Amino acid sequence: MPSAQKLSLVFSLLACACVVAVAQPSGRSERPQGPPDSDEQRIADLVLASRILVNEGVLDSFGHVTVRSLKNPAHYFMPRAMPPALVTASEIVELDRDSVPIDPQAPRTNGERFIHGEIYRLRPDVQAVVHSHSPAVIPFSITRERPLRPVLHMAGFLAERVSVFDHRNVSKDDPSLRGKLMVNNAKLGAALAKTLAGDSVVLIRGHGNAIVGSSLPWAVFRAVYTQLNARSQMEAIALGGEVTYLNEDEIKMHSVEVFDVERPWQNLKSRLPKTP
Amino acid sequence: MPSAQKLSLVFSLLACACVVAVAQPSGRSERPQGPPDSDEQRIADLVLASRILVNEGVLDSFGHVTVRSLKNPAHYFMPRAMPPALVTASEIVELDRDSVPIDPQAPRTNGERFIHGEIYRLRPDVQAVVHSHSPAVIPFSITRERPLRPVLHMAGFLAERVSVFDHRNVSKDDPSLRGKLMVNNAKLGAALAKTLAGDSVVLIRGHGNAIVGSSLPWAVFRAVYTQLNARSQMEAIALGGEVTYLNEDEIKMHSVEVFDVERPWQNLKSRLPKTP
Amino acid sequence: MPSAQKLSLVFSLLACACVVAVAQPSGRSERPQGPPDSDEQRIADLVLASRILVNEGVLDSFGHVTVRSLKNPAHYFMPRAMPPALVTASEIVELDRDSVPIDPQAPRTNGERFIHGEIYRLRPDVQAVVHSHSPAVIPFSITRERPLRPVLHMAGFLAERVSVFDHRNVSKDDPSLRGKLMVNNAKLGAALAKTLAGDSVVLIRGHGNAIVGSSLPWAVFRAVYTQLNARSQMEAIALGGEVTYLNEDEIKMHSVEVFDVERPWQNLKSRLPKTP
Amino acid sequence: MPSAQKLSLVFSLLACACVVAVAQPSGRSERPQGPPDSDEQRIADLVLASRILVNEGVLDSFGHVTVRSLKNPAHYFMPRAMPPALVTASEIVELDRDSVPIDPQAPRTNGERFIHGEIYRLRPDVQAVVHSHSPAVIPFSITRERPLRPVLHMAGFLAERVSVFDHRNVSKDDPSLRGKLMVNNAKLGAALAKTLAGDSVVLIRGHGNAIVGSSLPWAVFRAVYTQLNARSQMEAIALGGEVTYLNEDEIKMHSVEVFDVERPWQNLKSRLPKTP
Repeated sequence: MPSAQKLSLVFSLLACACVVAVAQPSGRSERPQGPPDSDEQRIADLVLASRILVNEGVLDSFGHVTVRSLKNPAHYFMPRAMPPALVTASEIVELDRDSVPIDPQAPRTNGERFIHGEIYRLRPDVQAVVHSHSPAVIPFSITRERPLRPVLHMAGFLAERVSVFDHRNVSKDDPSLRGKLMVNNAKLGAALAKTLAGDSVVLIRGHGNAIVGSSLPWAVFRAVYTQLNARSQMEAIALGGEVTYLNEDEIKMHSVEVFDVERPWQNLKSRLPKTP
Repeated sequence: MPSAQKLSLVFSLLACACVVAVAQPSGRSERPQGPPDSDEQRIADLVLASRILVNEGVLDSFGHVTVRSLKNPAHYFMPRAMPPALVTASEIVELDRDSVPIDPQAPRTNGERFIHGEIYRLRPDVQAVVHSHSPAVIPFSITRERPLRPVLHMAGFLAERVSVFDHRNVSKDDPSLRGKLMVNNAKLGAALAKTLAGDSVVLIRGHGNAIVGSSLPWAVFRAVYTQLNARSQMEAIALGGEVTYLNEDEIKMHSVEVFDVERPWQNLKSRLPKTP
Repeated sequence: MPSAQKLSLVFSLLACACVVAVAQPSGRSERPQGPPDSDEQRIADLVLASRILVNEGVLDSFGHVTVRSLKNPAHYFMPRAMPPALVTASEIVELDRDSVPIDPQAPRTNGERFIHGEIYRLRPDVQAVVHSHSPAVIPFSITRERPLRPVLHMAGFLAERVSVFDHRNVSKDDPSLRGKLMVNNAKLGAALAKTLAGDSVVLIRGHGNAIVGSSLPWAVFRAVYTQLNARSQMEAIALGGEVTYLNEDEIKMHSVEVFDVERPWQNLKSRLPKTP
Repeated sequence: MPSAQKLSLVFSLLACACVVAVAQPSGRSERPQGPPDSDEQRIADLVLASRILVNEGVLDSFGHVTVRSLKNPAHYFMPRAMPPALVTASEIVELDRDSVPIDPQAPRTNGERFIHGEIYRLRPDVQAVVHSHSPAVIPFSITRERPLRPVLHMAGFLAERVSVFDHRNVSKDDPSLRGKLMVNNAKLGAALAKTLAGDSVVLIRGHGNAIVGSSLPWAVFRAVYTQLNARSQMEAIALGGEVTYLNEDEIKMHSVEVFDVERPWQNLKSRLPKTP
């Protein structure tokens, strides 16, 4: 699907989300059973989200999760450059719309913060972004004939064929970007966000993926189930024969957030190793 | 095998089970070494069964196990809508033959309780049901040419070719069900139970499976070994060449409950993380 | 290789082992650095061996390890019918050459003790036997075109093509054995031992394997590395192209016990979860 | 690429490394944020490196890591013959340029120390060497048509096609080496080092690999990411279709040590089980 069409789809989905919101008693909140929304709560969830994604094998020594600021929606919160397993609330940095730290004394930030900043710029509906090197998803980024596609009912948030961002498409016209597999400047970040368009997930060739959600629990849930879907699809392909993917009706039914995200969120939290 | 034939097979197997029972000193009880049967004991086992299946990687944040009531065999016990890892005895809800909670003040129940309720209705021999998204089993639900089949001597309870339930077969005649991958109403539950027929296991396309047993330990055992059989079959197929499946004689010999289920049950219990 | 040839090979290997023994200062002992050999020490090692093989994913709720008696080499020691993870010294039963417990009050023994008893009868060089359902090895038992073969330098103890025992070869002439995947009588045990012949490992179709050693540490080491070899061979086959197996020279060089088995034994022991 | 060309490449890379060093404020140190370099520090890191590589599934009961001596760069430090999980500082032996222990009372050393000694001899730029049997990497050593190639942006340190050392190339002209899969003398060690040439990684057919780095953290990082790259490449191949490998520009950009190695090093340390 061309990007323009995808973007127009974002706005239809946003409109659609409003209808769903109206139909629900609790209005805007995406986490009816969760604590009240605030920047303090988002930062606390961000620490949990980092540790959960490490515990579920989505994040390694690198990779990062961020959350949009509630008070200033042009800004977002991100851990400083450090292993996600070790993040605490005091390691979180506030970045502006151009991914520049608000505090000039801020510690060193991740070179790939532009993945997050440029997605927040393009997608007002997105509240949280995960960038990971999730191993089960990587293979689908390096075989052009086999796109990642939804096979699981819990993965209806995946596009019918998940897009793959490849810097070569950008760097072929800009020699200064040649060979750059890292998305560590605004130009590459914007090109990645454009490839994501209105979807939930975009793969990054030979590198990883970026996954968005309307809250940290949703983004975390999607990161975990993108990995599960990838593994199931991979194993089904290895069995041979034709794979049955979700069809348009099924994706439409299951792309909507039809269940209570507090359930996986509470479960994933309970799986964290106890801190002494 | 057509469903009618399958159902007639159920009753033959039930008859056959009686013969086996006669041949055994301890009569009706399926767990000669276990504690005496009672609804309290069944609820205690249900809590263990939930935690065991999480610990063995069969259940994720979702999925559920249930047990039929001994006192009122038309009813069954099921955890409220919550992660199975966190279930305690006080979270168990009693549901009637139509999957309606007995207690009007009962907490919210799982949307997919109809999987259980409709199987209990059709299968008087079934005392326990597991519904999981067991990852190793999923691939066999989404490749039509490769049915799950028994390859392991401990998996003789699997049908020669395990059936796959696909809602598309139902929803093609009922537009209100279009796209519904969740089995969350009585009509879909009944259709699933009919596909299961007299078997032990039925797959649910792009979603998971339902597994039944004559007790919680048997249902848990089967859920664990269905997963192991799936993985072995998958790996044998990947090796190439022709796979040797259990033949009719072997399935007949091993579909009967020929060993003491207390052995895996005690072992799986001992593997649970110690609660502090 | 026909069985007769294999058996003659056993005796050549035994002769060869004597030569090696002569060349070593410490003579007969297979564990120069281990504690002095005695039945008490063998029983203590047997408890460790059971727990190690569970911990390494070789044994599940079933499966068993045994050791020959030093005092009465026609007898062997085996845990009673119970999960191997939970075995203690007081659960060990002494069995005679026909796999009958010495003590008429002995607790219930495993139905498949004949695997061990018949191997000890045929192979005087064998001091320990492992029977497992090691999942990585199973696929090679159910695809006739893909025998398990040594690919790892630590797996030189594997025959060039590991034999597979299939009860169908026996039961086709004996209707009373039809469908019996369990090796739970003397006739099937003897047929299995004959298939093993002079090798270290024999697979059992759709069921598992039996692995022998000149001591418990050697049998445990081989069980762990048979599993690793199986996984590597499986993955190499999945890569496509021709696989390079160990050649005759390499097998000859590495089938001999060229390193100190105390090293993996100490390591595998250190990996056991601490008992409280 | 022929070895001669490879060796000339080493020296170009060394020259290039100097340029990078000049461009950095901190000059020679490879670990700007780590503790000051000394033999005591290297030995402490060596203990950590052994335990980390066991914890990440790279090392089993065998395998070893070593580090060059800072005081006497012709020497190197290596644990005595023992399981890498159990190494402490008091188990470290100093070896000379011919892999002979300095202390005539030194405990027994590993037979395969020549892998390390001969690489240190040929490669003055190398400060640390890992020799492992990393299971995910083995398959690429036993299928000639499928070389290990970089697919991950974190694995730009891999050569375009990673070389495989096979003793058969050496032993075909020297009958005394026939069948020797172990690299346990100087001749085989030198032949292996020559196959490694100027690369970071060399596979050893049917056995494992050797991985080098400019410090222990770099060698450990590379060992972990070689394993991740192998698994991703394997799974991409299993998906079918053409795999996109890193191209020359990407390898050039990412073979340089472009990020702070303290980040994975701190993370991998934090993952170690706590010692009581």
